[in-house]
Amino acid sequence: MWTARTAARRLVLSPRRWQHTTSRQPLSSVTPEDIAHFAKILPRNAILSTLPPSALPSSEIEQYNNDWMGKYHGSATTVLRPQTTQQVSEIMKWCYERRIGVVPQGGNTGLVGGSVPVKDELILNLGNMSKVRSFDPVSGALVADAGCILESLSEYIAPHNHIMPLDLGAKGSCQIGGNVATNAGGLRLLRYGSLHGTVLGLEVVLPDGTILDNLTTIRKDNTGKPTSGYDLKQLFIGAEGTLGIITGVSILTPPAPQATNNIILALPRFENVLPLFKTARLHLSEILSAFEFIDREAYELAVKHGQGRALGEDEVEGAQCFVLLETSGGKKEHDEEKLTTLLESLMDAEDPLIITGVLSQSPTQFASLWRLREGITEAVSKEGKAYKYDISVPLASFKDVVDTTREHLRKNGLLHADAVKQVIGYGHVGDGNLHLNIVAAAYTPEIEAALEPFVYELVASYNGSISAEHGLGAMKAHAIHYSKSDVAVDMMKRIKQLLDPRGIMNPGKVLEV
Amino acid sequence: MWTARTAARRLVLSPRRWQHTTSRQPLSSVTPEDIAHFAKILPRNAILSTLPPSALPSSEIEQYNNDWMGKYHGSATTVLRPQTTQQVSEIMKWCYERRIGVVPQGGNTGLVGGSVPVKDELILNLGNMSKVRSFDPVSGALVADAGCILESLSEYIAPHNHIMPLDLGAKGSCQIGGNVATNAGGLRLLRYGSLHGTVLGLEVVLPDGTILDNLTTIRKDNTGKPTSGYDLKQLFIGAEGTLGIITGVSILTPPAPQATNNIILALPRFENVLPLFKTARLHLSEILSAFEFIDREAYELAVKHGQGRALGEDEVEGAQCFVLLETSGGKKEHDEEKLTTLLESLMDAEDPLIITGVLSQSPTQFASLWRLREGITEAVSKEGKAYKYDISVPLASFKDVVDTTREHLRKNGLLHADAVKQVIGYGHVGDGNLHLNIVAAAYTPEIEAALEPFVYELVASYNGSISAEHGLGAMKAHAIHYSKSDVAVDMMKRIKQLLDPRGIMNPGKVLEV
Ligand SMILES: Cc1cc2nc3c(=O)[nH]c(=O)nc-3n(C[C@H](O)[C@H](O)[C@H](O)COP(=O)(O)OP(=O)(O)OC[C@H]3O[C@@H](n4cnc5c(N)ncnc54)[C@H](O)[C@@H]3O)c2cc1C
Ligand SMILES: Cc1cc2nc3c(=O)[nH]c(=O)nc-3n(C[C@H](O)[C@H](O)[C@H](O)COP(=O)(O)OP(=O)(O)OC[C@H]3O[C@@H](n4cnc5c(N)ncnc54)[C@H](O)[C@@H]3O)c2cc1C
Repeated sequence: MWTARTAARRLVLSPRRWQHTTSRQPLSSVTPEDIAHFAKILPRNAILSTLPPSALPSSEIEQYNNDWMGKYHGSATTVLRPQTTQQVSEIMKWCYERRIGVVPQGGNTGLVGGSVPVKDELILNLGNMSKVRSFDPVSGALVADAGCILESLSEYIAPHNHIMPLDLGAKGSCQIGGNVATNAGGLRLLRYGSLHGTVLGLEVVLPDGTILDNLTTIRKDNTGKPTSGYDLKQLFIGAEGTLGIITGVSILTPPAPQATNNIILALPRFENVLPLFKTARLHLSEILSAFEFIDREAYELAVKHGQGRALGEDEVEGAQCFVLLETSGGKKEHDEEKLTTLLESLMDAEDPLIITGVLSQSPTQFASLWRLREGITEAVSKEGKAYKYDISVPLASFKDVVDTTREHLRKNGLLHADAVKQVIGYGHVGDGNLHLNIVAAAYTPEIEAALEPFVYELVASYNGSISAEHGLGAMKAHAIHYSKSDVAVDMMKRIKQLLDPRGIMNPGKVLEV
Repeated sequence: MWTARTAARRLVLSPRRWQHTTSRQPLSSVTPEDIAHFAKILPRNAILSTLPPSALPSSEIEQYNNDWMGKYHGSATTVLRPQTTQQVSEIMKWCYERRIGVVPQGGNTGLVGGSVPVKDELILNLGNMSKVRSFDPVSGALVADAGCILESLSEYIAPHNHIMPLDLGAKGSCQIGGNVATNAGGLRLLRYGSLHGTVLGLEVVLPDGTILDNLTTIRKDNTGKPTSGYDLKQLFIGAEGTLGIITGVSILTPPAPQATNNIILALPRFENVLPLFKTARLHLSEILSAFEFIDREAYELAVKHGQGRALGEDEVEGAQCFVLLETSGGKKEHDEEKLTTLLESLMDAEDPLIITGVLSQSPTQFASLWRLREGITEAVSKEGKAYKYDISVPLASFKDVVDTTREHLRKNGLLHADAVKQVIGYGHVGDGNLHLNIVAAAYTPEIEAALEPFVYELVASYNGSISAEHGLGAMKAHAIHYSKSDVAVDMMKRIKQLLDPRGIMNPGKVLEV
């Protein structure tokens, strides 16, 4: 990749590069005077601050300063919880003027430290913006405040027989705005595609307080296509709050499938996953809506922490890994028929791809099988402190990546109860996405040093990507060059400079500027 | 929309506005010296020019200077037909240096004058870049040169049981690069979503010749998710060649549905379309993959020009409009069963929504029904010269828009055989998209004056969008404010200036800069 050609290109580009060294001033801390100003914009209870006049104890804002994993810790003095877009705009106008860094915060379930301050930036929490603005049952277009919780939205549209185009383990806490900001993938991506396709429009408050209203246009026509011109909203999908604050989301919700089934399969060897995927695709074609990989250690962990439905002891004997497979089709019995045929053909083969397969027999079993998969993240967090790498590598190398990492830690004397307890892998096979989790007793500099850049280089050696769906956040901002070319990083920096010339939006995240 | 608030915002923004008046110099015409330089980059037969040394007659490049409708006419002297990305890069480097305007041209089937020069810009035709680079039958990721024709790609992947996620009447000529550049919608959008979701990666040559290679990363992981960071490729989807030249496309192709059926319905009244859509959604849920509206005049025109399968005379008696409905599901018989039940319930109603409905009985009939719908564009062009407005308005107003326009032309004395022959409407109901076509004997200033801004204002009065899928091109660059806010247009201009500081990429299109 790093050819002379690329180098030559960089020279061509350099005259156009931004000179932010001169214009970029240090960011300001929030002062009591700022709080007094915010009090003119927001009601009292929407301002949480350790500064006067309220001077709350810092424990009161602890939950906002610390991330879901307990790995990243900010030292914000102030959290604002606006209720309207207009309030967000007024806040941003002030912060822009005063050069105060701002961290947009949704459900704070992000896994890369993006949702908490690096230092003492202001936290702008969207939790109070949680109204559905409109729903059109004909087109399925849903318009909601960014702070709406994903699961609440699912519940809101369920009676209309629609579902959200995305689903993830954090659904009970994560917000639609956070989902869009991280371009969350999740469990339905194989079927409904990415948010770049399903988001119809966004309302965004830019760093200087300007409101970019892409919702209005879209609500008008309710199409899956953006209207004319550059599709600006796309810039904010996956920007992790570094270009602006998403305050409203318009999203296309698909009609609920007429029938869903799922099945869990125990595989004797990892090598069977790819042929199994191919066979399943052949038999099920487009009704295959999820194909999730779970390695043995991840499975055991989920079972240990009581997540969902386990198979019998004898059924899993000799299983090296598991696959959870879902179909969404036209009619339950027909799909079941197809799944049964698939199961039979898998078992009957001379060298069977699977040891066992269990089809869910009721809605409860269906949900329970999913809980097993979705519950892994939570099981991991119950077990210890996790270093989470959310990578994209060729499917065939999933196991190698997990094994090589474990071996590397062992060699470094770090694989024992007081350091790293487990190295596990699971993920969305359908999208080539592996969650590599290193479960430790505690976060320590030694473990981190052993893992980074080791893991990034390992991924690079497979031509993979270091961030398949969780984003870069604070964790991987410095490592962006592992998956982006120089030309791309340069263009990203210029776009950041264009939209956020003072560098106040979520500083230290995504890009090192 | 144009509140004092917006005005205030604009003031805030103004200091950051670009001052291109001073830096923007006039563009240069291509000279014989340029041709001599291009001859160092390209083989002789890839350079078509009326300039020396070859000095071709202008008839030889006529087809490149004129658009599909014969409405827009450029006066380029030179057409280049590179074969490699490297050649495109060398060409752009030179044009950047020399400030020569460049029009990227795909299949030249665009309907808004985007693909031909406004003056004498250089035409860079992608037709010689037509190789498939790779296809992964497991993930469905297809990587192809931008110049590949849509239909050829469909044929390429058909044996692997995959289909392209988009389909349109121009498939035999339009190129995948042109599809991406226009963010083409088409006939499968309802089912597979927009190109913003299905395009995995792009290779783009920027105006200064820099190659932005987003393909490599994506080919690595074959995911439906962009990798980390801002999703730069999205900027080029729908930019109509004003930000760079797309040279390679990586796109996710879905598995072919296991079964497709279609049906044509004749409706007594336009008012029945919406209830019909609701009923169909209820019965067919997610297997409903297309729902196309055709008004009586559009239907007659298609039949007159021998496009596809017509219903019997008696079957269409009293029909005000037609609906073509497609299902893509798991099993042909099951879906047929559902369609039959739907048909029965429609006919049995006390006040039936339809007069008649005919289900296709064979692949030939299936194709023929589709040809009826797809052939309208061609039928229109056989009938006369069309003013095409590709708008998004609430479904309930489709008919009003067509009728009001016809009435307006009549009042202006323009509705007769020598001026406007017909005003017809058809479109993708599922996406709220109406094609309003005014079929005239010839393009004349009188008709244009009667139509514009009349149509744009009519659309605005319904809070609609003036460009649902065909783009803005040369036709609507001046009218962008009818569907975009000031803030959005301003941001678009700043992005244009950032990526194309010399304004050489497809000048006069999309934005008036
Ligand atoms: C149990 C569990 C399971 C998970 N499973 C998945 C999964 O399958 N797939 C997946 O992709 N992720 C997954 N995640 C990660 C995480 O839940 C998602 O990234 C989620 O989309 C974050 O939403 P949030 O509202 O919690 O955002 P936060 O964590 O609050 O914020 C995440 C990032 O987005 C920014 N942000 C938040 N709201 C806004 C806004 N309104 N405007 C601008 N920027 C904003 C923040 O600044 C931060 O950079 C999982 C997490 C957990 C804890
Ligand atoms: C019969 C018929 C039916 C149609 N049906 C539909 C429909 O259903 N839906 C729909 O959306 N459109 C439709 N169209 C419009 C048109 O076919 C599409 O917009 C198509 O995507 C254009 O592709 P093309 O290769 O012909 O591009 P061109 O017409 O050559 O170019 C279109 C625009 O894209 C730019 N461009 C082309 N290639 C590149 C490239 N490689 N890099 C950068 N810019 C490039 C051009 O500069 C121009 O601005 C139809 C047209 C016809 C004639």
